[in-house]
This record gives sequence, structure tokens and C-alpha cells, in this order.
Amino acid sequence: MLLAIDWGNSNLRAAVLDGEGRPLRRLARPDGCSSLAPADFAPRLASIRAELGAEALPALACGAVGAREGWAEVPYVPLPAAPLDVAARLHAVPGAGLHIVPGLAATTPPRAVMRGEESQLAGLDLAEGRVCLPGTHSKWVTLEGGRVTGFRSYQTGEMFALVTRHSRIAAPGDADDPAGFDAGLARADAPLPLTASLFAIRTDRLLGALPEGQGIAAVAGLLIGAEVGHALTEGAPGPVTLCGDPAMTRRYARALARHGVPCREVDGEAAAWRGLARIARAAELAHG
Amino acid sequence: MLLAIDWGNSNLRAAVLDGEGRPLRRLARPDGCSSLAPADFAPRLASIRAELGAEALPALACGAVGAREGWAEVPYVPLPAAPLDVAARLHAVPGAGLHIVPGLAATTPPRAVMRGEESQLAGLDLAEGRVCLPGTHSKWVTLEGGRVTGFRSYQTGEMFALVTRHSRIAAPGDADDPAGFDAGLARADAPLPLTASLFAIRTDRLLGALPEGQGIAAVAGLLIGAEVGHALTEGAPGPVTLCGDPAMTRRYARALARHGVPCREVDGEAAAWRGLARIARAAELAHG
Repeated sequence: MLLAIDWGNSNLRAAVLDGEGRPLRRLARPDGCSSLAPADFAPRLASIRAELGAEALPALACGAVGAREGWAEVPYVPLPAAPLDVAARLHAVPGAGLHIVPGLAATTPPRAVMRGEESQLAGLDLAEGRVCLPGTHSKWVTLEGGRVTGFRSYQTGEMFALVTRHSRIAAPGDADDPAGFDAGLARADAPLPLTASLFAIRTDRLLGALPEGQGIAAVAGLLIGAEVGHALTEGAPGPVTLCGDPAMTRRYARALARHGVPCREVDGEAAAWRGLARIARAAELAHG
Repeated sequence: MLLAIDWGNSNLRAAVLDGEGRPLRRLARPDGCSSLAPADFAPRLASIRAELGAEALPALACGAVGAREGWAEVPYVPLPAAPLDVAARLHAVPGAGLHIVPGLAATTPPRAVMRGEESQLAGLDLAEGRVCLPGTHSKWVTLEGGRVTGFRSYQTGEMFALVTRHSRIAAPGDADDPAGFDAGLARADAPLPLTASLFAIRTDRLLGALPEGQGIAAVAGLLIGAEVGHALTEGAPGPVTLCGDPAMTRRYARALARHGVPCREVDGEAAAWRGLARIARAAELAHG
């Protein structure tokens, strides 16, 4: 048994896992690293242990908890690297009964870093091909011979939040409106910088050329479409594994279908638990 | 003499102008339309008149004051239109001694709208060629035979504010750092969506490939470079007239120089005063 924690910047999820990485008990909290001071981490972990009845279990955490602003800065493992290679480089937090998983870094252009996604990758059964992990900072990962050989980040989720919270591009509405989303995907085909294509959504709403209620879904479609359209120009062709929140992978599947690219959708949370269990086993932290 | 007001969303500028459009007295205030309720406009105008000793002068305003959220919604003049064509379509605000200048709209794709820039265009002595008006929502305008035949908007200034205020892409720093700005311009050449190229600035800072202090200037260079690079693929080649805040037109001139495109820089405030004076004269609002 293992206490596994996916401890991101905004939120955390924790679970007690069985030997196969299946969650027996779980919790989710808004205690992301960006809201915590250094002295906050140890008491939060104690409170997680108490809530999940996991006082005596070895604990393994991935995500921003290992970043500069996290509990302890854990050096990245450079590419190429197999996802399970991180097991040899875990960082033990003194006195906490906790190990932190290092992220991966591509240190030559295009430079890129990940923290947390490596654990999801460790939970996939994939040695070759492309994986897209949508999110605040989406990642497109290339796997060759069981190793990650490169990846790129797109701040698609963050841009969506910036634009819909702090600008007048889109009125409030349903981000999954299918007609609006498809209109956004189609707009992503134009060779325009996003500063022009995002603003065009506002203009078209103003001039009645885009229904008011479709604006926010059009923004989602445009940003996801721009990411997918570009990502498909890089790396090998072939099916894409989408690993993330099911509501999100569904949107990406729709964008890929527009390009005729097949995909398989994997639940990102389940992949993270499977991956953390495998990393713990490889590091002989937990005995199942 | 005329009381001229450039009344935008965030700020306003007002001036008492002589017959040539030269400001005799002027003021600037943060009383943009977005901070005002409908009942606020008349008392603000009275206070402007009092401060500038302009109680008895005809007044002419351009900008967001004529938008849906402004004092009165004034219909756009459709393209093609000469900048001075707006003089025939001024909106008189009852009882206020104020006329509002309509904006221009391109109602066929690429659809675009402007409010305020038409008055700056009326202050330029240009019948043919391209004008760039940098700002929150930059405009690139094509003039043919004295008429505006098309334009496009880029939310470059707004995106810069969104990214630098609400994201961790760039640390605080000098937005005019020359090396950082040039590094950003160079990054704009890559065929990447801005969600990838903006995020790469953060990654490269993290990995030490871009000096920490250059991040914010790199964001400015990237966003301006993406705008300029795309705008130069549209419309006729030739010199560009840059009309705006001198600190801003200087940045755009640097981006244009990278493409070998000559430009002329015109102060945007002076152009607005000249243009409003010309519009007032064409509408016979002001004499002398």
C-alpha cells in the first residue's frame, strides 16, 4: 500500500493505493503549492494522512511539490529518459516519510519541463508514439523505444483562463457548446497569431457574425485547435494517446477527428495512480 | 476653438484646440468609460469643461464613449470610408453640447471595428499605404485613394497586460531591455502558436537559457513581432506609418527594421487632436 499524492500548483489529489495502483480511498483539496508557505507542507501532509488513515504508509508525491516554489526543489531528469527512470532519482524529504518524484526536462531546444506528467506517462502502457496530456500547460510527448525523446508545452488551459476571466473576448456561456467549439476549431486553421484570431471572436460577436452564447466555446475551440494543429506538424504521424480529465480529452478528440487522426482516451487521474504505484515499486518504497 | 476628448475605455484625454488642432490646454484622467455608469458621463464632461475653462465651447469626443457601454451607442460607418466621412454621421448628445464621432467597421471578413483610431487617421496626411496604430488593440489599416479599405486588429497590448499581470511567464523587469526585446522578436519568427512560444519564454528562464531580467521584454518582443510579422503578409508592401505613443511606435519601428521595412513615426495624441479639429470643421461644429 502507498499514499500517492499528485500535488500541483492549484490543487492536490491524494489516494491510498493498492499494489496495482488502484485507489482504495481518495481526497481532493485546493491546497496547491502556490497557496502554501514552506512551513505549511508538513502539516498538510499530516492532515492528508489522517483523513485517509494513511499515517503509517510510505508516501510518494509528484507535481509542483518538487519545484522551486514547492516543498523541495528536485532536479529534473534530462531526456531521453524512460518514465520509470525517475524511480532512481526520488528525493526523500527528511523526517516526512515522503519521497518526491523528479520531473523531466528537455534541455536542448525546444526546451521543455514537466512535473507530474512523468508519473502519468509511467502509468500508460506505451513504448512508441505520441501522448497529449491536456491541461493548464498541455504537453505533447514523443515516446521512442520506451523512452521520452522530446516534448512541447502549450499554455492552452492557462490562456483560456486568462482570456475568459480577465478580458472581454467572450461573454459567459457554455464552454462545450458544440457549434461554438467547432467554429473555434475552424478559426484555428487560419495562419493568424492568436492575438488576432482571439480578438476576431470578440469582433464577430459585436457584429452579430457569431452568436453571443458561442463566444466562450469558440475561444476553447480556437486555443485547442491551434495547439492540436501545430502539434500534428511535429513528430511522427499515427494515433495519439490522450491522457487527462475525461471532459478535456473529449474536446481534444474532437479536434483530432477534424484532422482525421485517431486517438485513444485514458483517464489522467487513474494513469497518475498507476504510474506512482509503479514508480514506488521500482524504487522499492512500497510492497504491494 | 473646440473642446476635443479622446474618451477611451480606460482613460480619457481632453484638450482645448485652436483652429489647426493644436492643444492650448489639456488634461488626462483615468475616467475611462468602463469605470463610468450612464449617469456619470454628464457630470464628468462638466468637470472637464470647468478644469479647461471650456464651458462655452462646442465639444467633440471619439473612442469608447460611442460604444454600447459608453455614453451613447453610435453606429459604425461601414468601409470603404474616408476618415473625414465620419463628420457627416456625428451623434449629438441631447443637452450636452457634445457630438460623438462614430467608429469604422469592416462588416465583411476579416471583420473589424475601431473607435477612436478613425480620428487619428483623420489627422494624418495620408491617402495611400498602411498605417499601424499600436495599442491595447492594435490596428493595421490600409488606405487607398484616401479611403480606408480594410483593417485588422491584434490584441497585442491587452495580451501583454494579461500575461505580465496574471501569469508566471515573465518576472518583473524592464519591458524595454534591448537584448530581451530582440530575443522576443527573433522568437516570433517560429511558426508556433503564441500559447507555445509564450510558454517557452518561461521554460527558457527556468532552465537558464534566457536571462531572468529579459523575460518581460522578450514577451513584448514576441507579441509585437508576431503582430508585425503577420501584418506584413497582408496588404501592399511599402513603408508603414506608425501612429501612437512614441515609446510604443519606437518598439514597432524596431520590429519593422528587422524585416527591412521603412516607417515614419507620428505622435498619436497630436494626430487625434488634428483629426478631431478637422472633423469638427468638416461638420461645421467649430469656427476658427
